[in-house]
Amino acid sequence: MKPQSPVARPASLQLTPDGRLRHFLSIEGLPRALLEQILDTAESFANLGGPAVKKVPLLRGKTIVNLFFEASTRTRTTFELAAKRLSADVLNLNIGAAATVKGETLLDTLRNLEAMHTDMFVVRHADSGAAHFIARHAAPHVRVINAGDGRHAHPTQAMLDMFTIRRVKGAFEPLCVAIVGDILHSRVARSQIHALKTLGTGCVRVVAPRTLLPAEVETLGVEAHVDPETGLEEADVIIMLRLQRERMKGAFLPSEHEYFQRFGLTEERLRRARPDVIVMHPGPINRGVEIDSRVADGPRSVILRQVTYGIAVRMAVMSMALGTGTDAS
Amino acid sequence: MKPQSPVARPASLQLTPDGRLRHFLSIEGLPRALLEQILDTAESFANLGGPAVKKVPLLRGKTIVNLFFEASTRTRTTFELAAKRLSADVLNLNIGAAATVKGETLLDTLRNLEAMHTDMFVVRHADSGAAHFIARHAAPHVRVINAGDGRHAHPTQAMLDMFTIRRVKGAFEPLCVAIVGDILHSRVARSQIHALKTLGTGCVRVVAPRTLLPAEVETLGVEAHVDPETGLEEADVIIMLRLQRERMKGAFLPSEHEYFQRFGLTEERLRRARPDVIVMHPGPINRGVEIDSRVADGPRSVILRQVTYGIAVRMAVMSMALGTGTDAS
Amino acid sequence: MKPQSPVARPASLQLTPDGRLRHFLSIEGLPRALLEQILDTAESFANLGGPAVKKVPLLRGKTIVNLFFEASTRTRTTFELAAKRLSADVLNLNIGAAATVKGETLLDTLRNLEAMHTDMFVVRHADSGAAHFIARHAAPHVRVINAGDGRHAHPTQAMLDMFTIRRVKGAFEPLCVAIVGDILHSRVARSQIHALKTLGTGCVRVVAPRTLLPAEVETLGVEAHVDPETGLEEADVIIMLRLQRERMKGAFLPSEHEYFQRFGLTEERLRRARPDVIVMHPGPINRGVEIDSRVADGPRSVILRQVTYGIAVRMAVMSMALGTGTDAS
Repeated sequence: MKPQSPVARPASLQLTPDGRLRHFLSIEGLPRALLEQILDTAESFANLGGPAVKKVPLLRGKTIVNLFFEASTRTRTTFELAAKRLSADVLNLNIGAAATVKGETLLDTLRNLEAMHTDMFVVRHADSGAAHFIARHAAPHVRVINAGDGRHAHPTQAMLDMFTIRRVKGAFEPLCVAIVGDILHSRVARSQIHALKTLGTGCVRVVAPRTLLPAEVETLGVEAHVDPETGLEEADVIIMLRLQRERMKGAFLPSEHEYFQRFGLTEERLRRARPDVIVMHPGPINRGVEIDSRVADGPRSVILRQVTYGIAVRMAVMSMALGTGTDAS
Repeated sequence: MKPQSPVARPASLQLTPDGRLRHFLSIEGLPRALLEQILDTAESFANLGGPAVKKVPLLRGKTIVNLFFEASTRTRTTFELAAKRLSADVLNLNIGAAATVKGETLLDTLRNLEAMHTDMFVVRHADSGAAHFIARHAAPHVRVINAGDGRHAHPTQAMLDMFTIRRVKGAFEPLCVAIVGDILHSRVARSQIHALKTLGTGCVRVVAPRTLLPAEVETLGVEAHVDPETGLEEADVIIMLRLQRERMKGAFLPSEHEYFQRFGLTEERLRRARPDVIVMHPGPINRGVEIDSRVADGPRSVILRQVTYGIAVRMAVMSMALGTGTDAS
Repeated sequence: MKPQSPVARPASLQLTPDGRLRHFLSIEGLPRALLEQILDTAESFANLGGPAVKKVPLLRGKTIVNLFFEASTRTRTTFELAAKRLSADVLNLNIGAAATVKGETLLDTLRNLEAMHTDMFVVRHADSGAAHFIARHAAPHVRVINAGDGRHAHPTQAMLDMFTIRRVKGAFEPLCVAIVGDILHSRVARSQIHALKTLGTGCVRVVAPRTLLPAEVETLGVEAHVDPETGLEEADVIIMLRLQRERMKGAFLPSEHEYFQRFGLTEERLRRARPDVIVMHPGPINRGVEIDSRVADGPRSVILRQVTYGIAVRMAVMSMALGTGTDAS
């Protein structure tokens, strides 16, 4: 989980010279003040929420392109809703299917979309570093949001998790947060760890079978636990990761059943944590694999609030990135 | 055609405590006054129509999700247009393809969409009772419209048919309406019969080969005819049903050709009806199977007016359901 | 390249009785003043462009249907963006897939869409004459734009090329324009030749291997060259065509490599032209097949400006066609 060559020096790429958000590619390297600005901005949109959602005209006349090289209806939907609630026009492009039809290269696709005066690319890609690559090659007036790239990062997911934690718990410093599951393959976990550490969380633990823990994970400033009994002990926040069945193929774990036996979050296991613990999950959940339905649907779960806050956080990131000088460029 | 267990007590589910429209799932059990309110509301939108369609801002800021578990471009298009003309944001989800990719369950999908502050689900599903199931499990602020569920109901289709009849004929009491075709398998016919009876239609006939007539269909208050010569006699309105070839598979009928010979609506057969009879069809028509092109395109046909009125009726149902207290819930 | 029977007398179909744009189906037969009006109208939209694109409310309340019988994400995207920037509602229909599902005929599909009070069909079809056919059968209030039909025409592409030429070069009369590539199969080339001739271009050349030149191409008023050395000589504008690999199948050319050797636009070959020559291409380009990357990305290339201007030209055509009396029809 060291920075890879294609994603080196992310902060300079993500920020304008005066330190404002330009692209949102990864949490790594972003200053705490900027993360807090995202949370504060999202707060203003979350207060618009509720059954009587109102649209705001902040991005009227802007065109946002969902550039999805990897299918994800769920993630695309949240970005599409966030963009529409900001009054932007949205273009959904499944590039995996479309661009290869006529052999157009990725860079030519980007140049063409830019020439159409689109303002933002929301990029989802199976390869780590794809969003950085696109941001490095994008025209000056274009903004890029990483909606998940390979095993690397999923920064809007991490920020909606931070938003949820702050809304419920207030401050990060006194908290003990346990992230449980396939840490090794998870872009969500990577981004969460960076966000939690940047925001000053007192204690961050990763809890996984040894085969699903990255080597030297402690260098990120987290405690590694192979036993959920100790990993969940007195936790204020438990973040369960989704078991990516398609990435497992029996190589790392004997069976889903055994995984649930050893790491699945049950009511019994939940009692190790603090009484006011909250349980989070990026969704969609595998009931009975990484989490028991009684926990997922129980009083400690804030899983659906995460979904709600996800719209507000994406509205925040989009409006901040498009508010930094695209008119003048 | 008795009410099935999953759809029992539909009225209480469809109405608010003070009797206003909450969900629109089936015609069965709805009071006549409510059906007339739908027709009156649609009238106000139909007058907006014509080449210079104007949008109305009634649902600005609302998000309507087309939840299609069964593909139907045609039906989805009418709901999408109706929603856009009410200034709502529309999200098209082909759930059959998307939700199963990651094994998300239906209820988890619903919970997630609700958490994104969506306001209405337009549901199309191959299983009878699916829309009722979703309405029973939906959050209080969410409204559900049935866009066709299995063999059960297609209530917006029935209401656009009623709207067409009322616009041309004025009142229902003096009319004799003949529904011709595969009554047994048709959700459209079910909903039409309930609507016609509720609105006080003087005479409702179903006309079909015996194998395509439900047992005890007369208990619904209709006359059953196996001979179109008597079934069409002096009819004011003829509603042809679409022959669902995919549901037939030779089990009920020897061939399309023979079906047309026995039940197809020809100009000759049309002469059995009253001179000012109107001919209706839910579309898309099978030319030369259930209806002759000269009749479909002839002066008695109001088939395309049905399509036009379909937008107004869907605008009416959507705005009525979203006007009943979703802000306060 | 003579007019085919299905597209005879295009001008009378395309214009209103008082000579304004009704449908935009082909350049052939349109008067010079109308082409110049399109360019002038596009100029007003191009000035809206740039990073701070603003939407204009010209088509608010109008519904534009992208009727694509042939997949083309790129072309659909440009029309979708143009329509949205005019504040129209857009409906994307992949008719190839949808309409055949239930065996609905093309004319029934059109009648249904018209009955839904849609205002414009943007038609893409693999058959020559398809857009004309639809325009001839469309309801009086509906407008049709040809977005490419078989080998016949692609008039919005030709007009954005004209717009690009006029923006850079000013006037058409003094220019020598060379169109290079598969003239025989290219709807783009057909439309460009008609546009250039109508606008009074001094010299129009087609440059291609003999097997890719239509018989009697000179009757269109162009010079035919089989040798790029003479074909590019002193050219002010070079328009490269895309090599349609899928249409070639080895019948006309031995290999892509040999094609590039003989006709590919390299920096060396470019020196035959005038120093201020501009290089155009309808995109997407096949790098190293019809054009060298150094030329495509070099200082003489205006390929991306073509993409930008394409939005403005499509906005012009859409707003002109929908401004001619659809309210009164």
